[in-house]
Amino acid sequence: MGKVSIGTNVFVYPNPVTLLGTMVEGKINFMPLGWVSRVNADPPWIGIGVNRGHHSTKGIHENGTFSVNFPSADMIEETDYCGLVSGSKADKSGLFECFYGTLKTAPLISACPLCLECRLVQSMDLPTNDWFIGEIVSAWIEDACLTEGKPDIRKMNPLLLTMPDNRYWTVGPEAGRAWGAGAELLKRRKE
Amino acid sequence: MGKVSIGTNVFVYPNPVTLLGTMVEGKINFMPLGWVSRVNADPPWIGIGVNRGHHSTKGIHENGTFSVNFPSADMIEETDYCGLVSGSKADKSGLFECFYGTLKTAPLISACPLCLECRLVQSMDLPTNDWFIGEIVSAWIEDACLTEGKPDIRKMNPLLLTMPDNRYWTVGPEAGRAWGAGAELLKRRKE
Repeated sequence: MGKVSIGTNVFVYPNPVTLLGTMVEGKINFMPLGWVSRVNADPPWIGIGVNRGHHSTKGIHENGTFSVNFPSADMIEETDYCGLVSGSKADKSGLFECFYGTLKTAPLISACPLCLECRLVQSMDLPTNDWFIGEIVSAWIEDACLTEGKPDIRKMNPLLLTMPDNRYWTVGPEAGRAWGAGAELLKRRKE
Repeated sequence: MGKVSIGTNVFVYPNPVTLLGTMVEGKINFMPLGWVSRVNADPPWIGIGVNRGHHSTKGIHENGTFSVNFPSADMIEETDYCGLVSGSKADKSGLFECFYGTLKTAPLISACPLCLECRLVQSMDLPTNDWFIGEIVSAWIEDACLTEGKPDIRKMNPLLLTMPDNRYWTVGPEAGRAWGAGAELLKRRKE
């Protein structure tokens, strides 16, 4: 046992899987997106990393809006399909039934358990990727994914992605409570 | 069934869980970090979102370096402990055995299956959080977490985090192949 130095482009870790929704030249488009993270607590901002060549980036620049939709594991085929063909070559607008919040150019996917409607705050022009920061204008969850009124990840059953081995995963059993599992150790170290 | 609009600070999605390693005023410090995403493919850049009040941010500004370490599920107690007490109040430097790559101020945690050594490229001063972008200078994996020479997420057994319900999760069964699971649908839609 011991540590091995590996290439900086071959390590894997679990990304959430989302579907980025945009409106490009008046047409709805979707692409799978794994590079996503909250970036600011208040106001509620989220960041997404998109390879500059992607058709979706045009729509974000055009409208200053996008959506981040979290598909359930049973949407794996449609989700993956969106990454196999560019919106510049195929019309993906009819693939999912959509709805809208207050922004009329951020299509939200009805079938996804969780949908975030975002207004572009800032875009960073990194060497090979755009990093877009959006304010979450509204968040929508499927009623059936609530437990006692709160979002339940087990009911959402979202997908995870590892790259470059290119595998989707589900979320497994709960491992413990955050800001809780270490309480005993805190106590022991204070003694 | 149907969509419900919920608050923009109560939705949940699976974040990876990492331990941010820094050197603050000459002392090693760690904090749990869930807001992390790759942001650029080439060069290999990673972004991390840290509440500005955290002690760790001082070290990043001081040295222009940090590490991102992915603990395994059996490190849940130590990982969570790091989030229960600030490095300004407790000395966490001896909690983990560390090693170093080329940067001498980015402590890498020997017990973590995957460790990334990062040099600060850019920091963004967002309203409540710092968003730091780092170049991944080197990546280290535990030899036992390789399968046929490649990193295997099942052997790494990393933690996921959902907030604000504050729960840790493990990675579950594989759901399918990315850039593969949608191939049949692509074929059908082309016909």
